[in-house]
Amino acid sequence: MGTPSAPIADFYAVVPAGGAGTRLWPLSRRDAPKFLLDLTGSGRSLLQGTVDRLVPLAGEDGVVLVTGERHVAAARTQLPGLSDDAVLAEPSPRDSMAAIGLAAAVLQERHGDVVIGSFAADQVISGTDAFEQAVREAVEAAREGYVVTIGIAASRPSTAFGYVRSGESLGVLSAPTALHAQGFTEKPDADTARAYLATGQYRWNAGMFIVRTSVLLDHLARERPALHDGLRTIAAAWDSPARDEVVAATWPGLERIAIDHAVAEPVAALGGVAVVPGTFGWDDVGDFNSLAALLPSVDGAGSKVLGDGADVVRIDSAGSVVVPGDRVVAVLGLDDVVVVDTPDALLVTTRARAQKVKQMVDALHDLGLDELL
Amino acid sequence: MGTPSAPIADFYAVVPAGGAGTRLWPLSRRDAPKFLLDLTGSGRSLLQGTVDRLVPLAGEDGVVLVTGERHVAAARTQLPGLSDDAVLAEPSPRDSMAAIGLAAAVLQERHGDVVIGSFAADQVISGTDAFEQAVREAVEAAREGYVVTIGIAASRPSTAFGYVRSGESLGVLSAPTALHAQGFTEKPDADTARAYLATGQYRWNAGMFIVRTSVLLDHLARERPALHDGLRTIAAAWDSPARDEVVAATWPGLERIAIDHAVAEPVAALGGVAVVPGTFGWDDVGDFNSLAALLPSVDGAGSKVLGDGADVVRIDSAGSVVVPGDRVVAVLGLDDVVVVDTPDALLVTTRARAQKVKQMVDALHDLGLDELL
Repeated sequence: MGTPSAPIADFYAVVPAGGAGTRLWPLSRRDAPKFLLDLTGSGRSLLQGTVDRLVPLAGEDGVVLVTGERHVAAARTQLPGLSDDAVLAEPSPRDSMAAIGLAAAVLQERHGDVVIGSFAADQVISGTDAFEQAVREAVEAAREGYVVTIGIAASRPSTAFGYVRSGESLGVLSAPTALHAQGFTEKPDADTARAYLATGQYRWNAGMFIVRTSVLLDHLARERPALHDGLRTIAAAWDSPARDEVVAATWPGLERIAIDHAVAEPVAALGGVAVVPGTFGWDDVGDFNSLAALLPSVDGAGSKVLGDGADVVRIDSAGSVVVPGDRVVAVLGLDDVVVVDTPDALLVTTRARAQKVKQMVDALHDLGLDELL
Repeated sequence: MGTPSAPIADFYAVVPAGGAGTRLWPLSRRDAPKFLLDLTGSGRSLLQGTVDRLVPLAGEDGVVLVTGERHVAAARTQLPGLSDDAVLAEPSPRDSMAAIGLAAAVLQERHGDVVIGSFAADQVISGTDAFEQAVREAVEAAREGYVVTIGIAASRPSTAFGYVRSGESLGVLSAPTALHAQGFTEKPDADTARAYLATGQYRWNAGMFIVRTSVLLDHLARERPALHDGLRTIAAAWDSPARDEVVAATWPGLERIAIDHAVAEPVAALGGVAVVPGTFGWDDVGDFNSLAALLPSVDGAGSKVLGDGADVVRIDSAGSVVVPGDRVVAVLGLDDVVVVDTPDALLVTTRARAQKVKQMVDALHDLGLDELL
C-alpha cells in the first residue's frame, strides 16, 4: 500500500452499471445483476468494490453512477454515501455511449470542462496502487486532449475480451508510459489472439475510457450528431424541473451504440486515442471459470467455493466450482463440475461449458420460465 | 392381467422392512428409508407396492409387517388397512433371521403350522401374474417341507446381487417348475458372475423365502438354538400382557444374522432348499443407476427424472438421472450425471459412481453431519 494521495483535481469517475451477466445465471438475475453481487467473497459487491476503488481518485463527491431505473434502489442501498445527484437513472438501456455520454454532458453542465473516467461496475481489480497510478497517468494524457484507455497486460490469449493495439510513445511528460493507440479489435478467435500476444503490442481493452468532457462531446457531435444533441438536450434539463419531461421525450429515441464503436474506434483512426498500460490484475468475471480464478482453492485440488466452504463436501472431485445455497452440496466423482444452488434454480454444468451458460438462459426463456431469469 | 384368484389358504406374507438404503442418499434417510419412498413415480411407496402385491396372495388379513419401532408410525400411515396385530415392531435391528423368525413364531402361535413367504419391503417387481404364479408354486413346494426361494432370471452378470444355483427338478406335481437348490453364493466379482450366467444354472437370490413355520423353526432350532429359543419365548408372550417385558428382556440378546447364513445355506447343503424360477421383472432399487432403470426416458436420450419432468431442463446432456426438489434443475453439457435435490442436501455425482454414494454418507458422518443422514 502506498501513501494515501489526494483525489485528482477536476476529475470525476463515472460508473456505468448495466448488463445482466447471463453467463453467471442463476447467481445473476435480471433483478440481481452481476454488479450487485459479491462474487469474490469479500463482503462487498462488484459495484461497491468499484466505488471503493474510485473514491480515493475522484473524492467522495466525485463518483457518478449511471444505471437503470430498476436498479437504483438496490444500488443506493449498497452505496449509502452517494448523493442524489450522484445517481443518473436511465429509463431504458441505450448501451454504453448514451450512459457515458449522459454523464459527460451532465457533469459538463455542472462543473464545466472536466476529466471523466468511465469504469464499469462489474469488474474486479487487484493491485490498487498500480490501478491508481494508471488512472493518474491517463488523466494527465486526457488533459492533453486524448481519449485515453487503459490497456491490461494480457495474461493469456483470451477470446472473451477485445484488444487495443498500442504504438509509439505519446510523448506527454506527465504520462510517461502512455502510448498512441493504433486501434481496437473485437473479441478474436484463439489463433488471432495468440498472434496478437506474439507482437507484444496488444492489450486487453477493459472498457476504461478517460477523457475531457468537451473532447468526448466534440467527438460525439462529429461522429453521432443526433445522439450528441439528444444527450445535450437531456443534460441541460437534468438539474431542472423539466428533467422528467425532457428525458421522457428524448431518451427513448437515442441510438443504442457502444462507446467503442461510436467514439473510440473512429477517433483511434484519427490518432486521437492513447493507451496507458495497466499492470494491475483485472477480470470482468464474465463466467464461472472467471469467477473461479478469483477464489482461493479450498482443498489443494483447485476446488473453489463461493460461500461457506463447510457447506461443500467433495469426494474424488478436483477443480469444482460450487456456489452453495442454504443446503449442503455433496459432489462425488466429478472433476471440474460447476454447481450453483439458489432458492429457485440449480445449475449443474462444467467449467468447460462456462461460456455456454447463456444458452441455458435462452432455453429457459423459450420455455416461458422468465421468472427464473 | 389374469382373472383374480382367491388368496392362498393358510398362507401369510411377511414383509421385513428395514435397511436405510444409503446408496440412495440424500433421497433415503434414516427416518425416511428406501421402503417408505415412492421411487418409481407410481404414487405408491415401495412398501405400499409390496403390500399391494401380496394382498391378493395372502388376503387382507394375511400380511404381517416386521419393522423397527421408529418406522411403525410412518408405515401405519402408509398402510391404514393393516390391523394392530399385523405390525411386529422390533426394538432394535437384529438382521433378517430374527425378523422373519419372529414372524414365523408369532404366526405359528396364532394359527398353527402355516406357510409363510418373506418379501422385502424395498423391492420393485413388474409382471404381477408371473409373480403370483411363482409364489403359488413356491407355497406348494413349501407344503412338502422345503425351504423355497424364488430365483430371478439374471438379465445381466450383476455384482450387486447374490445368486442361487439350481439343480434337478424337485418332482412336486403341484410345483412343476420347482428345482432343487444346490447352494447360494455371495455377491460375486464380474468374471464369476459371467461364468455363473454361462452355466444357465444360476439365478439372482431375491431374498424371497417361502416355508412352513414349523419347518423354518425346526431348522433354526438345529442351526441356531439360542436364537430359536429366544424367538419362541418372545412369540409365546407376544399376544399377552407380558409382551413388553419379555421383549425387553430377550430381544437385545438375539444373534444378528441373515436368514441366508442361519438357515438357507446350511439347509441347502442338506438338500432341503428348492428354487422356483421367477420370470417377472425384479430389482432392489439399490442405487441411482438401478432407480434410473425403472423410470421412462424423458427425452429419447436416456435421461430420467423422478418427479416433475418440467422441473428439469437439459442442454447437451444425455443419460442424466435427476430427482428435482422444489426448484428447477438446469443441466448443461454433462452426460450420465446424477443430481438429487432435497431441502437440506444436494448430491451431484455420476451414474458410474452410483454404488459409491455410501462413501459420501460415511464422509458426512465423519464430518459430524449426521442430521443430514
